[in-house]
Amino acid sequence: VAIARALDELEDRVTETGVALAGIRRSSHIGMLSPYLERTCDAGLIGLLFTTSEALVHPAGGATALIGTNPIGIGIPAEPSHFVLDMATSAISMGEVIAHQARGQELPEGRAIDSEGVPTTDPVRARSGALSPFGGAKGYGLALGLELLVATLSGTALGVDVTGTLDRDKPATKGDLIVVIEPARAPAMVAAASEYLEAIRSAPTAPDVDAVLVPGDRARAQRAESCRTGIEYPQGLWAQLRDLRVRYGVNSAS
Amino acid sequence: VAIARALDELEDRVTETGVALAGIRRSSHIGMLSPYLERTCDAGLIGLLFTTSEALVHPAGGATALIGTNPIGIGIPAEPSHFVLDMATSAISMGEVIAHQARGQELPEGRAIDSEGVPTTDPVRARSGALSPFGGAKGYGLALGLELLVATLSGTALGVDVTGTLDRDKPATKGDLIVVIEPARAPAMVAAASEYLEAIRSAPTAPDVDAVLVPGDRARAQRAESCRTGIEYPQGLWAQLRDLRVRYGVNSAS
Repeated sequence: VAIARALDELEDRVTETGVALAGIRRSSHIGMLSPYLERTCDAGLIGLLFTTSEALVHPAGGATALIGTNPIGIGIPAEPSHFVLDMATSAISMGEVIAHQARGQELPEGRAIDSEGVPTTDPVRARSGALSPFGGAKGYGLALGLELLVATLSGTALGVDVTGTLDRDKPATKGDLIVVIEPARAPAMVAAASEYLEAIRSAPTAPDVDAVLVPGDRARAQRAESCRTGIEYPQGLWAQLRDLRVRYGVNSAS
Repeated sequence: VAIARALDELEDRVTETGVALAGIRRSSHIGMLSPYLERTCDAGLIGLLFTTSEALVHPAGGATALIGTNPIGIGIPAEPSHFVLDMATSAISMGEVIAHQARGQELPEGRAIDSEGVPTTDPVRARSGALSPFGGAKGYGLALGLELLVATLSGTALGVDVTGTLDRDKPATKGDLIVVIEPARAPAMVAAASEYLEAIRSAPTAPDVDAVLVPGDRARAQRAESCRTGIEYPQGLWAQLRDLRVRYGVNSAS
């Protein structure tokens, strides 16, 4: 809600200023970034969206979690679908680690360290250790830069002082940062961006690769499929939702 | 010079607006980003700097170069030294590939592909292939997002249409983007950022690691060392410079 309200104001202001920016304090877990970027793109605007989180990621060479999973969101208007990048700067999400543990699966290599700072594929050891940044030292530098950028512009906490997005007991001290910008030379540049993305999609592929994808392509195809055939839930989650429905007396349409 | 002139204007304007942005066209190779970010930080401002380049990087799953090495620069004021991130989104620079070839060395793994899209450690095959993005699919998404961001805001070329930074024969069609922002709650947030960076530097280390570094620490130490003891040149480069000096009749102080 805080983000949507900020976007209302930014979309008003940007028509006068060309660029507008909002820092958000005391807001809880932002969830996915992409819906907000779809919205700015639909309004013909470029959007940048950053957020911090509880420290779960270790610095390159470090043995403890000191940095959030700090996702980066970039939205650029294009046809037939906008370019929307929405990715964490950690090599894996804590949710995925927990899911691997629940399924009794090993993690892929390079995703996490144990509490001694040694790389591990054991999800249990990873949970008492830390997630690794994606892309080694470069990903670490990016994650750290975004932590500082968001905090210094929204006036929020840094590192281990970030609390309240993984539980409801502590105050939410993380920050969000949204930048909205009018593109130059639209609609010509929107056409150029769309043409470029089509060139990427039809690029020659490496051996054993079917097609080159643009970020968002897979999710968009999955969404279309889910709209046709429904959403698959893990058995346990579905049972949990049913129990909650019964406990709180919520009626279901189906 | 174009960047320095843009910074003059942005630093004037940002005191009124809080955020100011410049897109630059028809400018040649920008070189390092960090000196410009050191400058914005010295002025107490946050700086973001992006630039495109000739297409040298393949998309994830692709076999040809379609994206620039698109570096990302983030400058955040801090004590005793500013946080300055200046990194390409390619896993290695073309300059490093050429240097490996000159020394007859193999490339590290995962840095480049050959002209068929197959990963290679041979610098000769890499030069006729493409550089890989850092960090796999995530680094590819970031590089692509920055290519679109810079081009749509500066009204410049995309992908293989970017020319003129590797040679002097074609017009320079790449773009630069600078964003300058006043930090919130300074000087308190500058102090908080400085404290956080010190916590990162004194963090527990992984086995066999001496110390956790913040981006820029190594370069800063190297600069201090070079100021004391001089700069080491490869033997061939020094001879080339001497020949040029003789040919153009330039006098040298030493």
